[in-house]
Amino acid sequence: MENFKEFIIEGRDAFVPCLSLDCVIFGFHSGQLKILLLKMRYDELWALPGGFVYKDEDVDAAAARILRERTGIKDIFLQQLHVFGDPNRSDSKRNKNILEKDGFENGQGDWLTERFITVGYYALVDFSKVELAIDYSSEICEWQDLTSIPSLIMDHSCILKTALERLRKEINYQPIGLNLLPAKFTMPELQSLYEAILGKKLDRRNFQRRMLGYGLVNRLTETRKGGAHKAPYLYTFNNEKYKQALEEGLQGGW
Amino acid sequence: MENFKEFIIEGRDAFVPCLSLDCVIFGFHSGQLKILLLKMRYDELWALPGGFVYKDEDVDAAAARILRERTGIKDIFLQQLHVFGDPNRSDSKRNKNILEKDGFENGQGDWLTERFITVGYYALVDFSKVELAIDYSSEICEWQDLTSIPSLIMDHSCILKTALERLRKEINYQPIGLNLLPAKFTMPELQSLYEAILGKKLDRRNFQRRMLGYGLVNRLTETRKGGAHKAPYLYTFNNEKYKQALEEGLQGGW
Repeated sequence: MENFKEFIIEGRDAFVPCLSLDCVIFGFHSGQLKILLLKMRYDELWALPGGFVYKDEDVDAAAARILRERTGIKDIFLQQLHVFGDPNRSDSKRNKNILEKDGFENGQGDWLTERFITVGYYALVDFSKVELAIDYSSEICEWQDLTSIPSLIMDHSCILKTALERLRKEINYQPIGLNLLPAKFTMPELQSLYEAILGKKLDRRNFQRRMLGYGLVNRLTETRKGGAHKAPYLYTFNNEKYKQALEEGLQGGW
Repeated sequence: MENFKEFIIEGRDAFVPCLSLDCVIFGFHSGQLKILLLKMRYDELWALPGGFVYKDEDVDAAAARILRERTGIKDIFLQQLHVFGDPNRSDSKRNKNILEKDGFENGQGDWLTERFITVGYYALVDFSKVELAIDYSSEICEWQDLTSIPSLIMDHSCILKTALERLRKEINYQPIGLNLLPAKFTMPELQSLYEAILGKKLDRRNFQRRMLGYGLVNRLTETRKGGAHKAPYLYTFNNEKYKQALEEGLQGGW
């Protein structure tokens, strides 16, 4: 499927019917949390990167392929979020209008106006390491601030909200940050990651006390030099404890 | 759809194509963990209770309906587990054979021999409160010991394993037991629930120390009388702390 027209015409037979995937990609860099959005052609609304599953394709593999094709992002750990299965989540009339604006005659894209059940996926990446590459069906692919998300198509706001709630819940019992921070980081840098995800300021002393209490980080003898303040100590993650906490939760298994 | 034949013939147009749901229902009672299984007609294998989504039906609502129709269980909190989307998880040949044994002519049930992507659901219930009621398509519907599960169809063993792993992970960061234990329970009764889920013995003192440390239970002045040993204290869940721990994890949010 080399272009949008082929995609529409061949899609009916190529894809599993009535099933779509949508990816919520959180980007973290320099203390800021962002979300990756697409603006499709002939549409005023933005959308999460999404697509369809080939008839002989594994669903999780399809999510990785869709993300790669539509945004250029590859080799990230996408996790299943939730199945969004409200029968009214699809907007047939809207989809028909867009197909007509795009020059499709009656019938060619009818499969796209059916009810779709979508599997939501999510991931948290260091967006400075990601090179975005747009596909044929979009006008813009860019990171947007979580605090000023534009209007999204269908139930994509609800999918995004669900992903953010999941991330905020997970951070209460799982470690986070291993692939987002440099190998050596300061306690304030780790704290700013937590604050960006939680959307609130945390108490410096409490944060440090709890983080050290979980045994997730090792303090190095090195300090970060060059700042205006007293040089803060550098830390690394304790990989063994980190992995164990991913399995058993922050306070350890029973 | 009053009987199996109508279900097969009408199913093609009635249901969302290529999508199924399967429910892993864990039953707990008297210190034992069990799993609810069906044995279908004309089949030597057992299966998780499962079914299909009507074209205008919400997916989560379909899971509740399927469980009710096939097993009689209603009003329980079913949670989404995972989407199982391996293209090879369906066994077309096997399904064709079963349809033929059941007297269906060529074509009538062909929709059932397509590739199916299934959404797994799970729940943990007190099985003494559940009245089982079998539907037309099954021969047997019964609780089986987790330690001696028979051979299951398709990837149902994998779905069951995934659900058990999820439950064992959740118990590390979430409270469990509110709807499974009587309003007043002893510490050994609570411990036996944890041991049944984890499939291992726990140290009595450590368990009590941690459980009290999380503030999830309140000790009453009453004791459980009548046993051979010293009458143990009774406890109740602290509903506010329990609810908070469901949201924020056992060690509290950031």
